[in-house]
Amino acid sequence: MQLGLLYSGGKDSTLAALLLEDFYDVTLATAHFGITDDWRHAENAATELDLPFRRVELDEGVAEEAVSRIRDDGFPRNGIQHVHLAALEGLAAADFDAIADGTRRDDRVPTVSRAQAQSLEDRYDVDYVAPLSGFGRGAVDRLVESTLDVVAGPSEEIPRADYEAELRAKLIDEDGPAAVAEYFPDHDQTHVTGRR
Amino acid sequence: MQLGLLYSGGKDSTLAALLLEDFYDVTLATAHFGITDDWRHAENAATELDLPFRRVELDEGVAEEAVSRIRDDGFPRNGIQHVHLAALEGLAAADFDAIADGTRRDDRVPTVSRAQAQSLEDRYDVDYVAPLSGFGRGAVDRLVESTLDVVAGPSEEIPRADYEAELRAKLIDEDGPAAVAEYFPDHDQTHVTGRR
Repeated sequence: MQLGLLYSGGKDSTLAALLLEDFYDVTLATAHFGITDDWRHAENAATELDLPFRRVELDEGVAEEAVSRIRDDGFPRNGIQHVHLAALEGLAAADFDAIADGTRRDDRVPTVSRAQAQSLEDRYDVDYVAPLSGFGRGAVDRLVESTLDVVAGPSEEIPRADYEAELRAKLIDEDGPAAVAEYFPDHDQTHVTGRR
Repeated sequence: MQLGLLYSGGKDSTLAALLLEDFYDVTLATAHFGITDDWRHAENAATELDLPFRRVELDEGVAEEAVSRIRDDGFPRNGIQHVHLAALEGLAAADFDAIADGTRRDDRVPTVSRAQAQSLEDRYDVDYVAPLSGFGRGAVDRLVESTLDVVAGPSEEIPRADYEAELRAKLIDEDGPAAVAEYFPDHDQTHVTGRR
């Protein structure tokens, strides 16, 4: 069965790939808007993992809506959620038997509710699976420690492939660098450099 | 890392074992009350899978409370939920680094909420993982089809190792065979006979 996994090059979506690769033919798929070429960081991680890679191009209207929500809210949660659901729709519309993401049990964003999962499956005749949704942060960190080589640090220093990098770039372009500092709280990102 | 997986010999908990076995040293653990020796069906399935097996003995008071709830409710859901949570507590109290079960995204029972999962982890200093909680019924069935040999049929005809068999036996003993037909709706069970 062909499975497309929404992929950022970070530890969660990489661990999701490892959990699925014995059961599906996994393709790592990175959603992007064409704003930056940060998707190449995900392609590099995919090469290190020896898994096929694909881009999922999203309409720039999705980025505009997301940035507008982030600006209105003063925090990124709803904007990121908007892009994540659009990315899953884009992936579901491609020719996979199953699609997946790396959402964890305790993620506040993005989240995919049971009803949203069922709706995706029904509308696109595809299975949606979230292999980490039954794993908490501690369990994920311990599994990453034993299976992956990872670099970690603040968002601006770590190669980051997913759509958050492009939303940041768009905000800087439109509102200046201070907007990113204002709207995006500091948090560490991870980038996978290989299997252990 | 040593992981104990609550195990029935059915397709869901077996698929959970396959998802976890590359990441943990998995022991299949079957909770029972000493009412019947149906746990041997799980032990047989574990032997076929070539995974270690252990029993988790639960206090018969848990079975008494469950049967009482089933009798009061007229349906088994809350009684089964009561036993499942007690079984997870018993497993968490053993010497594992992580515990797991085979609950699926769309299971109505048993279910383990995010708060219950966090509480188990905090109280016992153990990771609780539910590897199928991000998989719907269709995805599980397709993975089982490609990985396991399974027999399926009505509950009374399929070797069934988990606590539901003992709750049925206790109900028959106390209230007669009609009670089981009244309280337990017909549904097909599965028993795993080996890997594909």
